[in-house]
Amino acid sequence: MAERADVIVVGGGPAGMTAASRVKRFRRNWRVVVFERSKYVSYAPCGLPYYLGGYADSIEELVHYPLRVFTEERGLEVYTKTEVVEAGEGYVRARFKDGSEKTFEWDKLLIATGARPRVPRVPGTDLEGVLTLRTLESGEEAEKVLNGAERIAIVGAGYIGLEVADNLARRGKKVLVVEMLPHVMPTLDPDMASVVEEELVRNGVELHLNEALREIAGSGKVEKIVTDKSEYRADAVFLATGVAPETTLADMLGVKKGATGAVSVDASMRTSHENVFAAGDVAEALNLVTGKPDWFPLAPVANKMGYVAGASLAGFEESFPGAVGTAITKVFGLEVARTGLTEERARKEGFDPVSVTITANSRASYYPGASQITVKLIADRSTGQLLGAQIIGGEGVLARINTLATLVAMRATVRDAFFSDLAYAPPFAPVWDPVIVAARVLLGKISGH
Amino acid sequence: MAERADVIVVGGGPAGMTAASRVKRFRRNWRVVVFERSKYVSYAPCGLPYYLGGYADSIEELVHYPLRVFTEERGLEVYTKTEVVEAGEGYVRARFKDGSEKTFEWDKLLIATGARPRVPRVPGTDLEGVLTLRTLESGEEAEKVLNGAERIAIVGAGYIGLEVADNLARRGKKVLVVEMLPHVMPTLDPDMASVVEEELVRNGVELHLNEALREIAGSGKVEKIVTDKSEYRADAVFLATGVAPETTLADMLGVKKGATGAVSVDASMRTSHENVFAAGDVAEALNLVTGKPDWFPLAPVANKMGYVAGASLAGFEESFPGAVGTAITKVFGLEVARTGLTEERARKEGFDPVSVTITANSRASYYPGASQITVKLIADRSTGQLLGAQIIGGEGVLARINTLATLVAMRATVRDAFFSDLAYAPPFAPVWDPVIVAARVLLGKISGH
Repeated sequence: MAERADVIVVGGGPAGMTAASRVKRFRRNWRVVVFERSKYVSYAPCGLPYYLGGYADSIEELVHYPLRVFTEERGLEVYTKTEVVEAGEGYVRARFKDGSEKTFEWDKLLIATGARPRVPRVPGTDLEGVLTLRTLESGEEAEKVLNGAERIAIVGAGYIGLEVADNLARRGKKVLVVEMLPHVMPTLDPDMASVVEEELVRNGVELHLNEALREIAGSGKVEKIVTDKSEYRADAVFLATGVAPETTLADMLGVKKGATGAVSVDASMRTSHENVFAAGDVAEALNLVTGKPDWFPLAPVANKMGYVAGASLAGFEESFPGAVGTAITKVFGLEVARTGLTEERARKEGFDPVSVTITANSRASYYPGASQITVKLIADRSTGQLLGAQIIGGEGVLARINTLATLVAMRATVRDAFFSDLAYAPPFAPVWDPVIVAARVLLGKISGH
Repeated sequence: MAERADVIVVGGGPAGMTAASRVKRFRRNWRVVVFERSKYVSYAPCGLPYYLGGYADSIEELVHYPLRVFTEERGLEVYTKTEVVEAGEGYVRARFKDGSEKTFEWDKLLIATGARPRVPRVPGTDLEGVLTLRTLESGEEAEKVLNGAERIAIVGAGYIGLEVADNLARRGKKVLVVEMLPHVMPTLDPDMASVVEEELVRNGVELHLNEALREIAGSGKVEKIVTDKSEYRADAVFLATGVAPETTLADMLGVKKGATGAVSVDASMRTSHENVFAAGDVAEALNLVTGKPDWFPLAPVANKMGYVAGASLAGFEESFPGAVGTAITKVFGLEVARTGLTEERARKEGFDPVSVTITANSRASYYPGASQITVKLIADRSTGQLLGAQIIGGEGVLARINTLATLVAMRATVRDAFFSDLAYAPPFAPVWDPVIVAARVLLGKISGH
């Protein structure tokens, strides 16, 4: 016998739990059921590298709210370790942790299945000691493997790869990073990425760029990795070669996907199916700079999409304006952040990008803790619209990237950025904040003065 | 015989030197003359409390650029220790440091005379040991007096008063603060000011609110201060009872002043006189929230006004959009910042203010350095327009206030603030940034969900 639910949410990550909680806020009497594949809900996978670095005492610290909050306080019905094995018009079939199955009929369904690690198609990815990071369980498994590993190979030099590299090097491991592309961090322009590369090498990371993984080899257990150029001994291998939207459920339901491969949604998070919504890393979002659908697999975006989806599922009007792809990370002594389009991407999108890169103090030069901060600003030459920014510095990067992210999202011009009324006092900033200095120089470059 | 100059700039502070330098950038052949009363130009008086706290090794560290940069590299003619003793249509008369005088005729003149400390009209302000902070010389004098002083009374609990209190207490002085108003920091709402008051007291500052200075007493030299309620022994007294625009020159020239008492200017920094401009702390600026002229005696605003005045003096089109009054300071272990209107001021300006105050973590809770951050957000109930924000926290306040200052200046709504695409990673912020949390709660309060 099939059960009935007003709303089914598939995926108990940030987007799913935010949406489910919000539905109950609007509709106290609705039955809202959540299925989550792993044993945790409301987790923050972005914390996993820091868990491996020893910052969190237990994996539970990466959970925002314990399950009890959702079930007892918010009135949700949550099934963990539960997979959706079949789905179609108005129903899903779930397989629970005990292996039993049940069919649920729904009025509305939310796809919040997130993203999954992309695993390169090379021999040996199933060897013992080959790791990916996504679920909290994958973090627990990695921790076990790492205890007995001396030399770790990380494949892929995006955020997760470099955060793992930093955290493992701090733990005294010998770290090797292999990246297929000519630079680390493809969300930065090459000039800024080079600064990060120097920092990695300075801190003892063995960095191999322009090198593609061909094989992971070993008898039963990882012993080495083989690239198109060489081979390296390794006791464990992290595959950090990016993520892809987890669209298995979306495909079962036949909802439309966009050019990015993620599920296509409107501003209310509705898919091509009237009663099916999608939010979080599985869904596309509007890029506020290009005005086109884009894919931002980032937790803050996922949360806000969940917030909007919650209202929409409950039948209230809400819309997600979009995002600009703001992100920050720490690579040893450097804070590294970006927002909007890179110069290269801006050119591809048909803008006429002009950029400047300046270096300034993060605080009054005499104040303790002051350090250098480098700001790259990118704008469109003809309109002066701010298209993106990249910042690297010893401290104070969050303040500057959030200011610029806000300006980019509001479609501000370089002139607006220059006239921003930012806070000043010697312990916090120089009187001309690095953001203002960069805008002033870029304004000069555009206007010729 | 009178000399001729294309542009005369009176005042060598941030606004004056920025403007003068910019004129020369546009007009290499113009004669640009600067008169400065003190012996320094391009100085940052905001650094004086930190100089007294021992952060800067010498007073020269508060000078942005040495005089040589302006004269040799930028081609300006700068007279320090020089006062304008007379001014009228097309001329000024300057008295140089050697006592000689000369008349200069000008085509265009910039009033960049800044602000002067307000000195309360009570007996004893001329005693030895009574100090104000404005020029760098006043900082040098204070340093001399403080060396022999144990117990310091500070009259006035605005930014400068509290920054001096913090820096002197750190040096081991016994510090007493007397404030006439019921709370410290009148640019904060009372609820937020109370948090600062607790921090002062916790750090050993003797705080007397609702108490007005009546007299400074002593034989030749300060011995005590007398208030309307009591009297306190003191070896030195800081008068930090605010500043007023220094309009002596403006009055000589007969230019119009606004309701704030500062010089009235248009967006190009032009006064009521076609060829006379004003910039910096002597001039008004548009308040972007109220849409009315206001007075923001803050260095970053002064600099940008100088930038605009420089273009205008050179005959180029430039306009200053206005400001929102963003400021930040450090009071012992607290970072304290504000932007836009307080709730009280918003009400006076005819808005229907609604506010929320939330407390959240500055970083992921498990990440070292995380501390609590309290955000008060104020918006207009009917339009949702963000009117102002106040933030107090152990760290991470700059990032949040600059984001909100940017939103307030762009006339964003609470909804825009909620959907801001801010950066997240455990070492920098929680996944729901405190700004977003505050906006979400305020959005709920406005919409009823």
